[in-house]
Amino acid sequence: MNELTVLISCPDQVGLVTRITNILAIHQLNIIAMREFVDEENKAFFTRIACTGLLEGVAQLKNELLKSLPEQAEVNLITQQQKKIAVLVTKEYHCLAEILIKNQFKTLGAEVQCVIGNYEELRDFSEKLGIPYFYVSHVGKDKSQFEAEIKSVINRFEVDYLVLAKFMQILSADFVKDYEGKIINIHHSFLPAFIGANPYRQAFERGVKVIGATAHFVTNNLDEGPIITQHTSPVDHNFSVKDMVRAGKEIEKKVLLDALALVVEDRVFVSGNKTIVFK
Amino acid sequence: MNELTVLISCPDQVGLVTRITNILAIHQLNIIAMREFVDEENKAFFTRIACTGLLEGVAQLKNELLKSLPEQAEVNLITQQQKKIAVLVTKEYHCLAEILIKNQFKTLGAEVQCVIGNYEELRDFSEKLGIPYFYVSHVGKDKSQFEAEIKSVINRFEVDYLVLAKFMQILSADFVKDYEGKIINIHHSFLPAFIGANPYRQAFERGVKVIGATAHFVTNNLDEGPIITQHTSPVDHNFSVKDMVRAGKEIEKKVLLDALALVVEDRVFVSGNKTIVFK
Amino acid sequence: MNELTVLISCPDQVGLVTRITNILAIHQLNIIAMREFVDEENKAFFTRIACTGLLEGVAQLKNELLKSLPEQAEVNLITQQQKKIAVLVTKEYHCLAEILIKNQFKTLGAEVQCVIGNYEELRDFSEKLGIPYFYVSHVGKDKSQFEAEIKSVINRFEVDYLVLAKFMQILSADFVKDYEGKIINIHHSFLPAFIGANPYRQAFERGVKVIGATAHFVTNNLDEGPIITQHTSPVDHNFSVKDMVRAGKEIEKKVLLDALALVVEDRVFVSGNKTIVFK
Amino acid sequence: MNELTVLISCPDQVGLVTRITNILAIHQLNIIAMREFVDEENKAFFTRIACTGLLEGVAQLKNELLKSLPEQAEVNLITQQQKKIAVLVTKEYHCLAEILIKNQFKTLGAEVQCVIGNYEELRDFSEKLGIPYFYVSHVGKDKSQFEAEIKSVINRFEVDYLVLAKFMQILSADFVKDYEGKIINIHHSFLPAFIGANPYRQAFERGVKVIGATAHFVTNNLDEGPIITQHTSPVDHNFSVKDMVRAGKEIEKKVLLDALALVVEDRVFVSGNKTIVFK
Repeated sequence: MNELTVLISCPDQVGLVTRITNILAIHQLNIIAMREFVDEENKAFFTRIACTGLLEGVAQLKNELLKSLPEQAEVNLITQQQKKIAVLVTKEYHCLAEILIKNQFKTLGAEVQCVIGNYEELRDFSEKLGIPYFYVSHVGKDKSQFEAEIKSVINRFEVDYLVLAKFMQILSADFVKDYEGKIINIHHSFLPAFIGANPYRQAFERGVKVIGATAHFVTNNLDEGPIITQHTSPVDHNFSVKDMVRAGKEIEKKVLLDALALVVEDRVFVSGNKTIVFK
Repeated sequence: MNELTVLISCPDQVGLVTRITNILAIHQLNIIAMREFVDEENKAFFTRIACTGLLEGVAQLKNELLKSLPEQAEVNLITQQQKKIAVLVTKEYHCLAEILIKNQFKTLGAEVQCVIGNYEELRDFSEKLGIPYFYVSHVGKDKSQFEAEIKSVINRFEVDYLVLAKFMQILSADFVKDYEGKIINIHHSFLPAFIGANPYRQAFERGVKVIGATAHFVTNNLDEGPIITQHTSPVDHNFSVKDMVRAGKEIEKKVLLDALALVVEDRVFVSGNKTIVFK
Repeated sequence: MNELTVLISCPDQVGLVTRITNILAIHQLNIIAMREFVDEENKAFFTRIACTGLLEGVAQLKNELLKSLPEQAEVNLITQQQKKIAVLVTKEYHCLAEILIKNQFKTLGAEVQCVIGNYEELRDFSEKLGIPYFYVSHVGKDKSQFEAEIKSVINRFEVDYLVLAKFMQILSADFVKDYEGKIINIHHSFLPAFIGANPYRQAFERGVKVIGATAHFVTNNLDEGPIITQHTSPVDHNFSVKDMVRAGKEIEKKVLLDALALVVEDRVFVSGNKTIVFK
Repeated sequence: MNELTVLISCPDQVGLVTRITNILAIHQLNIIAMREFVDEENKAFFTRIACTGLLEGVAQLKNELLKSLPEQAEVNLITQQQKKIAVLVTKEYHCLAEILIKNQFKTLGAEVQCVIGNYEELRDFSEKLGIPYFYVSHVGKDKSQFEAEIKSVINRFEVDYLVLAKFMQILSADFVKDYEGKIINIHHSFLPAFIGANPYRQAFERGVKVIGATAHFVTNNLDEGPIITQHTSPVDHNFSVKDMVRAGKEIEKKVLLDALALVVEDRVFVSGNKTIVFK
C-alpha cells in the first residue's frame, strides 16, 4: 500500500472539501488524515490530505483536481520519499550536530547530502559522521562570487532544502530568489524581538526574563521571513550573556529541528509572510 | 447565517469523509472547519465539522447521515447555543471563582445555573456574583440520601454538565451513571501519579520537580476517568507542601477551565477510557 | 517570634556577606533564608535576608549596617506587614478580577485599597467585592488635570504600589516621578517585541508562533521600564487576532499576579533598567 | 585567582551562616555566590558557597569548619576541575549522542572516560567520537558476573559518576552500594507515574495529555531514587505509542543532560530520598 500526500492551496469557495474528496474517492484513495484551514482575511483555502492507495495515474489525478478547483489553485502530489538537504554552517556546532546525529541514526526524516562552511572548524566533525564537507570562504570575495561557489557545490547534489544552521553570512536577494521557499534559517531570538546582531547581548541589556529562538524561511528581508516555529525559555538576573548564549543554543537546536521535521514532512504552507503548519 | 456543528463517531471504513461531505453539500452547508481522527487500534473514526448554512431539515440531515454510515454510528447535530452547567464545590474558592468571573463577564462559553456546596463557605461569594447557592450537607446522611438531595437541586434547572470544582465528596456509581459523560472533575495531580488523597503531600514526600493537575470525566473508577486536559509546573526543594498547594491551585484552575471550554464547544469525544480533543 | 526582611544594595566589596551576617548575629537574628547577587558588570551587590528574632532596636541595626557598608549602600529593614495597593483600570476585567478575587479570599499578599477607573464599566464588579471604585474620566481634560484627580484619590489612602491592570492611558513623566519604582504595569506582549498599540494585531500580522506578556515597573520611557516577569504561550495559524487576545489575557493575568506577589514580598530589586528577582 | 566550592550539610542551628562566612573571611576567601536551604521537616541545613582566593591550607580550612559546626556536619571543599564520567548504554543512541557531542566540543562540563554497552550497536558511533567502547554482554551470565565485568572496566579509569544513558539492565543492590550517590539514571516517565517497563505504552493506554522524563540517583529501589530533574511535554490523541517514544526521547536527553550539568557542578545535595538543587 503506497502513501500519497495531497497539498492544495487556492482561493476559498463553497464546496471545496467535497469536490476534492470526491475526486480522491474516484481514484480509490483512502484518506488517513486530513487537515484544512481557511484564511478568512485573505479568503484562501489550504489543505493537506494523507492518503493510501494505488498510485497509478498521479498526473491525471492532478489534472482532475486542477480542473475542479479555482484557477489559481496550486496542487502538489507527493509520493513518499525523503527530502534531501544541504546544511550551511559557520563555526557553531550545536545545530549541525543535532542534524548530523539524527541523520546518522536515520531519525531526521531527511537525508543530509553535504555540509558547506565558510570556515574549516566543522569539517572534521562532519566527515567523522560520513558527510562530505565543503569549505567556501567568504574572505576576499564579493558576495556574488562567494554565492556562486556555494551554488556550484549545491549543484553537485540533488537538494530540496538548504538549512542555515548558524550560518553567519547574509545571503543576497538573487541567491534567495533562486531557492525561494527552500531556505530555512534559525535566528537566535524570539522574533521580532532583537532583530539583527548579538540578540543575546541585546536581551541581556534589556533585562528580559524570557529568551527564545525562531526558525523561518529566508526572504529578502533579513529576519523577516515567514516564521515556522518558535520556542522560549525562562532566564533570570543570574544569566550572563554567556549563560544566555548557552541556554539559547538548546532552544535554537530544538526550534530548528522541529521546523525541519515539519517542512520535510510537507506540513508547512507559506501564505504571504506567514506559515500554516499542519502538525 | 446559522452555524451547525456535526459530530460523528463510527467504525472506520474507506470513504467516510467523502460520504459525509457529500451529504453536507447536498444540504447547502459550507464547511468552515473540519477535524477527523482514526483510532487505528480500535478501528474507529471520529469527526467534528463546523458548518454554516440554512438550518432547515436538521432531522432529515441526521437521518441521511445515519443511513450512509456504518450501523453503530453516532451522529450529533448541534445548533449554536450555550451549554448550561451546575458547579459543585466544597470549601476551596479558586476554581469556582474562575468559573463565576468568566460567567459574569460572558467569556465562559457556558451559563452557570447554580452552585451546590456541602459547606456554606462559598455561598456569599456565589450570591454576590448573582448565582443561586444551594447548601446540601453530607453530614449525618448516607450517600444515597445526600445524592438524592443534590439531584433534586440539579433537576430544578436545565443542566448539560456538572462541574466538580474541588468537590471533595466521592460520588456513587449510581449517581455517575445518571450523568454519564456529563461530569467533569479536577484532580490535583498529573494523573496517574498520586491517585487518591493529599497528592501534594505525596508529591512533597517523593521530592518531585514537577507538579500538575488533571481534568477528567468522572467514571465509576475514582481518578481513572478519561483525561481531558493536563498541565504541569516546575517546583523545587524550596516548596513546602503549602507552597505546592498554592502553586497547584493556579494549575488546577487553568486545567479545569481549559477542559470546560473544550467540552462546552463540543470538541471532546470520549472513546473507551480516552478522549479525542479537537482543539 | 517576629520576622524581619533585610534588603541591602551597595557597591561590591570583599567580605560583605561576613560583615552583614555578623551584625545580624550580634542582634540575635536567625537567618531563615538568604539570597545574594553580584552584578559583575556594574560591580554592585544585592542581598535579601529573611530573619527571625526580637525586633527591638531596628533603627540601631540599620545604623550599624550602614556604618559597616560602602557609602552608597541602601539598607531597608522590613517588619512583616502587608503592602497596600491601588488598582488602575480602564474597561478590561481579567487582571482586576484576578486581583480582587485573591484580595477577597486573602491570598493576594497585599490589601487592595481602591480601584480607580477612567470608565464606569468595572464599578459594579469592584463594589460587589467590597472595594471602593473611583471614576476619573480623562475626557475633556489635559493630562495634568486628569492625573491630579487620580492623585487626589490615591492620597485618600495609604498606598505602597499602584497596579496598572490594563489601564490604557499613558502617564506623564511628572506622575511617574512621584511614584518612582512604585508603579507596576502589564504590557500585552513579550517586550521588547511589539512595543506600542495593538500588540496582538501586530503579532497576528507577523505570524508569530508564540505570544507573551510582560509586567514591568513604569518609567518615563513607555514600555521600556525594568521587566519583573514575562511569560509566553504557543499560538498557531488558527488563532485570529481575537483568539490571540483571549489567550493573551490568560498570560497577562498570570504575569501580572506573579510580578505583584514578588514585589509585595520585597523580592525585587531594581538596578538600572533591570530587576534582580529573588524567588 | 583560584576557585573553591564549599559544600556543607549539617543539623540546623542558629548562627551557622555567620560562623561559616567568618571562617571563610579569615582565610581571605571572597564569596562569589552563596545558596543555602533549611529543611524545616528534618531540621537540616545545606549550603553551597562559591569562593575565590588563594587555595593554600584547604585541609586546615576544612578542619576549622568541622570544628565550628555540629558534629554530624559534612564538609566538602572542591577546587575546580572537571568530573570524569563513564556512560552505560544498551541500544538507544539519543542520550549517549547528546553526551558525546558535548564532550567532543568541550561543553559537557565533564570528561567522558568510556562507554560501556551490553550490545555492540553503539560502538561505532562512540569510537568515531574518540571514546573507547567496552562491550560487556549480560547474556548467559548471572548478574554478579555481569557486574564484576562492568566494574573491571570502570576500574581502568578514574570515574566520579556513572551515567545510565538508557541502560536497560537493573543493577544489583551490591553494585549500587559500591557507587552510592554516584549513579545517575534517566527514567522515561515523569515519576512516580508509570514506574516499570514500557512507560510510553502505559501512558498511551491511560490517555494522558502530558508525558515526561525523570533523572534520578539510583538506589536499591528501582525508579525510587532521589529525583534530580524532571520535565514534561504535551501530547494528544494523535500520538501513537511510537510518537510518544519519539517525543519522549527529546525530553529524556534534555532531562538527563540538565541533571548531569547540575551534578558535575556540585549543585545537588541528596537528603534522604530527595535532592536539594542549587541552580
